[in-house]
Amino acid sequence: MSQQRIETIQKWLKDQNAEFAFIQSKANLFYLTGFRCEPHERLISLFVFQDKEPFLVCPNMEKPLISQAGWAYPIIGYSDHENPWELINKYLSTYSFEQNIAAIEKEALSVARHEQLQNLFPTFTFVNCEQGIMEMRLIKNEDEIAILREAAKLADFGVEVGINAVKKGRTEMEILALIEYELKKKGIAEMSFGTLVLSGENTANPHGHPNTKQIKEGDFVLFDLGVVVEGYCSDITRTIILGQPTEQQEQIYSTVLKAQEETLHICREGTILGDLDRKARSIISNAGYGEYFPHRIGHGLGSEVHELPSLNETNNDRLQVGMTFTIEPGIYLPGVGGVRIEDDVLITKQGHECLTKFPKELQIIHS
Amino acid sequence: MSQQRIETIQKWLKDQNAEFAFIQSKANLFYLTGFRCEPHERLISLFVFQDKEPFLVCPNMEKPLISQAGWAYPIIGYSDHENPWELINKYLSTYSFEQNIAAIEKEALSVARHEQLQNLFPTFTFVNCEQGIMEMRLIKNEDEIAILREAAKLADFGVEVGINAVKKGRTEMEILALIEYELKKKGIAEMSFGTLVLSGENTANPHGHPNTKQIKEGDFVLFDLGVVVEGYCSDITRTIILGQPTEQQEQIYSTVLKAQEETLHICREGTILGDLDRKARSIISNAGYGEYFPHRIGHGLGSEVHELPSLNETNNDRLQVGMTFTIEPGIYLPGVGGVRIEDDVLITKQGHECLTKFPKELQIIHS
Repeated sequence: MSQQRIETIQKWLKDQNAEFAFIQSKANLFYLTGFRCEPHERLISLFVFQDKEPFLVCPNMEKPLISQAGWAYPIIGYSDHENPWELINKYLSTYSFEQNIAAIEKEALSVARHEQLQNLFPTFTFVNCEQGIMEMRLIKNEDEIAILREAAKLADFGVEVGINAVKKGRTEMEILALIEYELKKKGIAEMSFGTLVLSGENTANPHGHPNTKQIKEGDFVLFDLGVVVEGYCSDITRTIILGQPTEQQEQIYSTVLKAQEETLHICREGTILGDLDRKARSIISNAGYGEYFPHRIGHGLGSEVHELPSLNETNNDRLQVGMTFTIEPGIYLPGVGGVRIEDDVLITKQGHECLTKFPKELQIIHS
Repeated sequence: MSQQRIETIQKWLKDQNAEFAFIQSKANLFYLTGFRCEPHERLISLFVFQDKEPFLVCPNMEKPLISQAGWAYPIIGYSDHENPWELINKYLSTYSFEQNIAAIEKEALSVARHEQLQNLFPTFTFVNCEQGIMEMRLIKNEDEIAILREAAKLADFGVEVGINAVKKGRTEMEILALIEYELKKKGIAEMSFGTLVLSGENTANPHGHPNTKQIKEGDFVLFDLGVVVEGYCSDITRTIILGQPTEQQEQIYSTVLKAQEETLHICREGTILGDLDRKARSIISNAGYGEYFPHRIGHGLGSEVHELPSLNETNNDRLQVGMTFTIEPGIYLPGVGGVRIEDDVLITKQGHECLTKFPKELQIIHS
């Protein structure tokens, strides 16, 4: 798998007349090497050339894990007291370059590292390779889909654990702790992002912070969570209510649900991405809540929990078979609370498949 | 607190003849605004000027949380379909600049965002403000120390939960799940990094991945974990053994413990940072394990789990009162296993204080 992806990059480099690509984002390193790392401030980077052998640069202590991941090309290891850029310079000293172009990850590469590269290659111009790699990553193959499906199933399970734990007087953090406990016991070492369990007014912030507040009668309770399985992420949101909903709460919920279902309805090959956002936004606006839907309808999902495609209204690209993304409309009413319903969606030849399958009708928990 | 820090940056800008600082790393934003965010790919950034009012740029949906955090200056909010750079350009259109210098975070700013800034300020040169801010962050004040102490106490608690759960046949992930469950029930929404519970041969990788392997008789079991409390991190490692240690295991353990204690012994104001690494390394090398200690002796600790100072042997700076960092020697013997012992250390007027206090003599768990 990695081999084929490296070859695709090599072909891309030839098309761009670029000597090499310098890759160091966690997600692209994983995609191209199978190695999933947490480098913190240490440099872990991949050089891919048009014809020459690629090589990796990494701290010595990561070398065994990289070999375990199946990396069969050279590795330049360094210790904490060594300067990896000097080792790279030495390694490259016998290489000769003719086209003074190299490809970097402009969104992911820091100015400081770019300056280091400019020092090593003072006559080079640097082009962006992110679009090229993201286009490879955009369409998932069967192996990736199988993993994403498994990750989505575990996200469903997480929501189920959470809903079963909702009880008057329990805190958001207690329920969050239980969800992650049950998932981690199953071997999930990493959540896709910080799990959200929000209740009452706290649900009115799309990115609220869970706290030790007790859940009370009449509260919306919102779960937003996902897990990482073999390097791929899931991301689900469900909102339920403890006790009887008010008329306004019911209206908010049914509006969000309608927006989600009607948007899913047009998820198929060829649909313009911006239309997905417009569809949901028009339903929510017609119900009078337009100003309370402050985010795009969704985002691509894969080895990053937010990746391409971005599902905002200005995106004129079209859905393709093999794309995976979220559909997640929401209404957040200050002082009242918020509702978001989110599924992970795969575009198939037949239309689409929701990878997350947890029920969506409003669940009313009696305290 | 934020006000005073903003003023320090303003003074720094005057000293540097820089018109403004553009700040967008999570840790520096938190330090300067009190707002702790997870922007993913969205731009959240702070402009600080020499004399003019600072302002924040952020997605509309983050605005309530920023105000909650106490930010009292202007906020430029944007929706997902808007280009924040255009809004920034508009906002700045009435400003006039004389010194064509601006300060950026070269380690944290991406090339793409730097290009956006260069488009807005084509005649500017950009200097690095990270050193300046990191020097502010390097010395912790009493409020910060109180929080770090609390975070360390919870890390001790996490290790205690983990050790009490060690039993032949339990898996690494089961124990990890339990540790985080107990911490999250106490309100800890975020761990400092992915918790490690490693056993047996898995301990021989400094950054091994916990799995669903059962712990067995004779295994070292290594816990490396930390929690985030009010934006500040802790980080502790302890290693124990299930069943009777072999002579070699005892020797490895006592060597690491000796290296840790003797290094702590020289932790006081004025010590050269590189000497800390050299001290531990000489003890481990004299015992014959030098090549199995592949990382530096420690790292600074604060609102980031790895920050300045870096405790590697080439660092000639000196310890100052108020610095906080880890001391964490380790020996990792392929096929046998590894031991690491790590504490969080504060430099005080009297010498040092270990913020983490969990006992360090070799604990032998009987199965």
